[in-house]
Amino acid sequence: MRVSHEQLEVRTNGKGTYEITDKVQEKVDNSKMKNGVVTVFVQHTSCSLTTMENAAPAARRDVERFLEKLVPENADYEHDDEGPDDMPSHIRMVLTRTSETIPIVDGKMQIGTWQGIFLFEHRRAQHRRRVHITIMGE
Amino acid sequence: MRVSHEQLEVRTNGKGTYEITDKVQEKVDNSKMKNGVVTVFVQHTSCSLTTMENAAPAARRDVERFLEKLVPENADYEHDDEGPDDMPSHIRMVLTRTSETIPIVDGKMQIGTWQGIFLFEHRRAQHRRRVHITIMGE
Amino acid sequence: MRVSHEQLEVRTNGKGTYEITDKVQEKVDNSKMKNGVVTVFVQHTSCSLTTMENAAPAARRDVERFLEKLVPENADYEHDDEGPDDMPSHIRMVLTRTSETIPIVDGKMQIGTWQGIFLFEHRRAQHRRRVHITIMGE
Repeated sequence: MRVSHEQLEVRTNGKGTYEITDKVQEKVDNSKMKNGVVTVFVQHTSCSLTTMENAAPAARRDVERFLEKLVPENADYEHDDEGPDDMPSHIRMVLTRTSETIPIVDGKMQIGTWQGIFLFEHRRAQHRRRVHITIMGE
Repeated sequence: MRVSHEQLEVRTNGKGTYEITDKVQEKVDNSKMKNGVVTVFVQHTSCSLTTMENAAPAARRDVERFLEKLVPENADYEHDDEGPDDMPSHIRMVLTRTSETIPIVDGKMQIGTWQGIFLFEHRRAQHRRRVHITIMGE
Repeated sequence: MRVSHEQLEVRTNGKGTYEITDKVQEKVDNSKMKNGVVTVFVQHTSCSLTTMENAAPAARRDVERFLEKLVPENADYEHDDEGPDDMPSHIRMVLTRTSETIPIVDGKMQIGTWQGIFLFEHRRAQHRRRVHITIMGE
C-alpha cells in the first residue's frame, strides 16, 4: 500500500459547474494505483467539489438556478466587503461539499454511469482553483 | 495494510430513508479488517447516502418532509423529461451526500449511539441502488 | 502504511461554529504521520463537522443566520419531544456534513489559506461532542 499526491488547477470563468472527471481519472492512471480510493479535495471556501449528473447540462443548470434562488446575492449579509456574490458562495459551499472519496478498482474510479465529478464555482470573477488529489492503495 | 471492496444492492420502494448500517457492518466483518476506515459510496445521482438519526423514525420523516418542501416537485425545472420527481432528486443529492467515510476500531464502525447509515431514496418508482463499500486498513 | 486513531472532545456552549483546525493538526503531529489523509468524523446527529471560512467570523455568523432561517425552530415538526431546537439540528446536519477527509503532505494538512475545520453546533444547551480522528498513511 502507498500514497500518491497530485495537484489539479481548474480555471473557472464565472458561476457554474466544471467537470473534472477525466482529469481525475488521468491522475489515477499516472499513479499506477489499481486498487484503493481517491480523495478529491478543493482548497477553497467559495466553490464546491461534488458529484453530479453528468449527461444532462440542463439538470446542472437547474441545480445552479435552485441554489441562486435558495441563497440569493441580495440578502442582508453582515459579511459583504468582497461583493454580493461572496457570502452566498460560502453558504453554498457549506450546503454542498468540499471533497469526494471514490473507490478505485482495476485502476478505474467506480462512479456510476451518470455520475461525474464537478468543481462547482460560486463566484462571478475568473478564478484558478486548486484541487488536491490523494490516491491511496496498491 | 490492505484494501477490500464489497458491493451492496439496496432495493428501494419509493421516496424515503432505508437503513443499511447492519449490512455495512456485515461487510466490515467479512473483510476481517480490524482497524482502518470504511467508505460507503452510492453510485447514483438521484438518491443520497448519509448518516442520520436512527432511533426516531419521526425525525427521519421530518427530514423527508423538509426536503419535499425545500425542493418541490412542481417547480419550473428545465430538465423535466423523466417526470416531476427527477430534477428534485438531483438537487436533493447535491444538498446532502453521496458517501460517508467511517472509522473502524476493533472491527466495529465507530458511529455514535444515535447514528445510522441510510440510503436516502428521492425517486417515486422502485429502484435497485448500487452501494460500493471500500474497507482500508489492517 | 499504518492507521492511527485519536479522539477529541469538543465542549460546546450553544449554537455556533467552533474551530478545531489546530487541535486536529496536533493529533496529526502526534501520530508522526507525514503523508496520507486524516478523516475527522463527528459521532452525533445534532451537530455537523465541516470546513468553513476561518478568517471572517462575520461570514460564519451569516452561515448560522442563513441556516436558522432556512430550518426554523418553530416549524410544525412531528419529532418535537426534545425541544424546539432538536429537529432543526438533525435537518441541518443532513444539509451539511458529518466528516471531512483531508490530505496530509510533509506532516501538514493541505487545507487552503482560508479553510478551517469546524464543529458546527446546532443545539442550544451545553454539549460534549466526540470527534473521531483517523490518520492513514506513512
